[in-house]
Amino acid sequence: MTMAIPGDFTARTEQVQARLTDRNVAGLVLFPSPNLSYLTGFVEEPMERHLLLVVTPAAIRMVAPTMYVEQLNAETDLEHIIAWADADDPLDAVQAALTETELANTDGRVLLDETMFARFVVDLQGLLPDASYGLAGEVLEDLRIIKDDAELTALREAASITDAAWMDVRDRGDELIGKTEQEVVYVLRDAIDAHGGDGFSFEPIVGSGPNGAKPHHRSGDRVIEAGDPVVFDFGTVVDGYPGDQTRTVVIGGEPPADFEEVHAIVHEAFQAGIEAVEPGVTAGSVDVAARSVIEDAGYGDVFLHRTGHGVGLEVHEPPYIVGGNDRILEPGMVHSVEPGIYLEGRFGVRIEDLVVVTEDGCEQLNATSRDWRSR
Amino acid sequence: MTMAIPGDFTARTEQVQARLTDRNVAGLVLFPSPNLSYLTGFVEEPMERHLLLVVTPAAIRMVAPTMYVEQLNAETDLEHIIAWADADDPLDAVQAALTETELANTDGRVLLDETMFARFVVDLQGLLPDASYGLAGEVLEDLRIIKDDAELTALREAASITDAAWMDVRDRGDELIGKTEQEVVYVLRDAIDAHGGDGFSFEPIVGSGPNGAKPHHRSGDRVIEAGDPVVFDFGTVVDGYPGDQTRTVVIGGEPPADFEEVHAIVHEAFQAGIEAVEPGVTAGSVDVAARSVIEDAGYGDVFLHRTGHGVGLEVHEPPYIVGGNDRILEPGMVHSVEPGIYLEGRFGVRIEDLVVVTEDGCEQLNATSRDWRSR
Repeated sequence: MTMAIPGDFTARTEQVQARLTDRNVAGLVLFPSPNLSYLTGFVEEPMERHLLLVVTPAAIRMVAPTMYVEQLNAETDLEHIIAWADADDPLDAVQAALTETELANTDGRVLLDETMFARFVVDLQGLLPDASYGLAGEVLEDLRIIKDDAELTALREAASITDAAWMDVRDRGDELIGKTEQEVVYVLRDAIDAHGGDGFSFEPIVGSGPNGAKPHHRSGDRVIEAGDPVVFDFGTVVDGYPGDQTRTVVIGGEPPADFEEVHAIVHEAFQAGIEAVEPGVTAGSVDVAARSVIEDAGYGDVFLHRTGHGVGLEVHEPPYIVGGNDRILEPGMVHSVEPGIYLEGRFGVRIEDLVVVTEDGCEQLNATSRDWRSR
Repeated sequence: MTMAIPGDFTARTEQVQARLTDRNVAGLVLFPSPNLSYLTGFVEEPMERHLLLVVTPAAIRMVAPTMYVEQLNAETDLEHIIAWADADDPLDAVQAALTETELANTDGRVLLDETMFARFVVDLQGLLPDASYGLAGEVLEDLRIIKDDAELTALREAASITDAAWMDVRDRGDELIGKTEQEVVYVLRDAIDAHGGDGFSFEPIVGSGPNGAKPHHRSGDRVIEAGDPVVFDFGTVVDGYPGDQTRTVVIGGEPPADFEEVHAIVHEAFQAGIEAVEPGVTAGSVDVAARSVIEDAGYGDVFLHRTGHGVGLEVHEPPYIVGGNDRILEPGMVHSVEPGIYLEGRFGVRIEDLVVVTEDGCEQLNATSRDWRSR
């Protein structure tokens, strides 16, 4: 489905150009990515063809395969598109963009889209051998990290649909016993469709029993049995902005030994993390708040990951809620709080909400029970 | 679902190391990508964390976030994993990998994964400032482009399930009238599930009426009406290998003016492309064979893209069937043949099969009718 990203793209582009000037950066080169969507509204997957946006203080040029021109004209306000056909050498189009934006022959700094493919980096470095290279976040991160009202509306709606889908699935209770994890993914998917979400925001995790102890297990052929703890980590998308929540429940039976205690510790760590979120504190301090609960309970070595990550046009983006991150939280930032304990070969527990940093604390975007009882 | 990629990973790695030596390349650095899957069997999406495979003639090291270690041990034969936790500096782990593989301080050539994110390229160039940089395809493309028996089995099965799903949907006929393109995507998805495919191999295209004239339109809210030409371009995945076929049909009604003639021209171009495929000819010559039919009919300027692309672990990979490509076709290569005509504001027609180059021609992997009549 063609996606509409909300935003004032002209204003964003002007802000980026002003930052290039302020920081004495010669140019910025983007590629199909969240950065490109943020600046132009254009949403496209990374591709092997040269589709690059060149931004300098002086000018903006889009290099695009001919077949994208109609779509770019329809979906963006870009005024200068340098098209190339499959039989052309795309580097001629890139060189034209560098010339027209006065970036050709630069010995200044050029910022590259963080997710630009190395093949395009190597091409650009061949055309601009005297430049030095940095990353686009230098001029985009501080803009993207503070969500405006339109972005917050989309994030709230994505969380709300994610919650509704989760309630549908949780309420199936014993019906989920005997299904494989992958079959449960289909149930989640149908629930998201029914509530109007735009598919999954990332490949969902349904980790049952020992699979729950692998933080990045997706889902597989394991059949869910009565009494299995199951980690459900998923979200949907609204207007390009993702939901992302995790609940760990026990379906139709008695949980394994230690489960209830471990779940209570994770829940306490989760609450400590939520309570630590407020403007003026560091991202790292939120990690410490959640982690210290788990460390004090003796499970510090099996909390295998950071406490959270920002969300926006990307499911993982700054601010990263990780030890040592001195980034100060500010109103309008949105991130996850998701401590977990992973007992290899047995089970895992993770609880996750998204939060918006507010003037005096945070707003939790997810509202469903964090309890482990599935009914 | 955890994906199992078929292949002899030890043999592939040895072949790559031998090529590094032969070509006097100091090292190869991969990132979660089809190249990494091809060499190790490990399948993961690109990520913002440092997960890199360093291969030199002397040694192999994987740099990975701690949370992936269990999965890597379970799913690969990698013997040396340098793990880093979220609170560590991942560049320390990368530096250790460079030292242990004898790549540190190199002033030789380093090959980068084509799809490696620029952020990791910039990191590596900071650690190896005296190296020169090229792309991994230099040692991997010639291996990956020839599919072995296990790969061909997966590709045949993916095509077969894709065909079966298409027949299910095509046989709905008039039932599709009144549905939106996106609703038809759900019908396709359910048909793929029913036949045992592992989801879509790429975001499917259901382009109805004028939307069919945009080659990279996905699907949207447009309601399909009687007599609309509709382009269906989709495929499923088996063991990591994709299907990819296109059919253009008219659903329940009379087609618009010129449609029948345009469809016949595209069909003729498709046949000419198929018949041109044999070992020893250039990829470019197959493009010429298909394109000249469309040019001779006066539609050359609205055949907006190349005639085809290779498929394998990527849906788009070499050999590219594009004018001027001198790559010689060899047995075991697999690619699409997919000419199209796009009449802006009216309709589009595209017909696509995948083919395997054989000893004396090609094997078409798709077997469903290319006719435009939906029944």
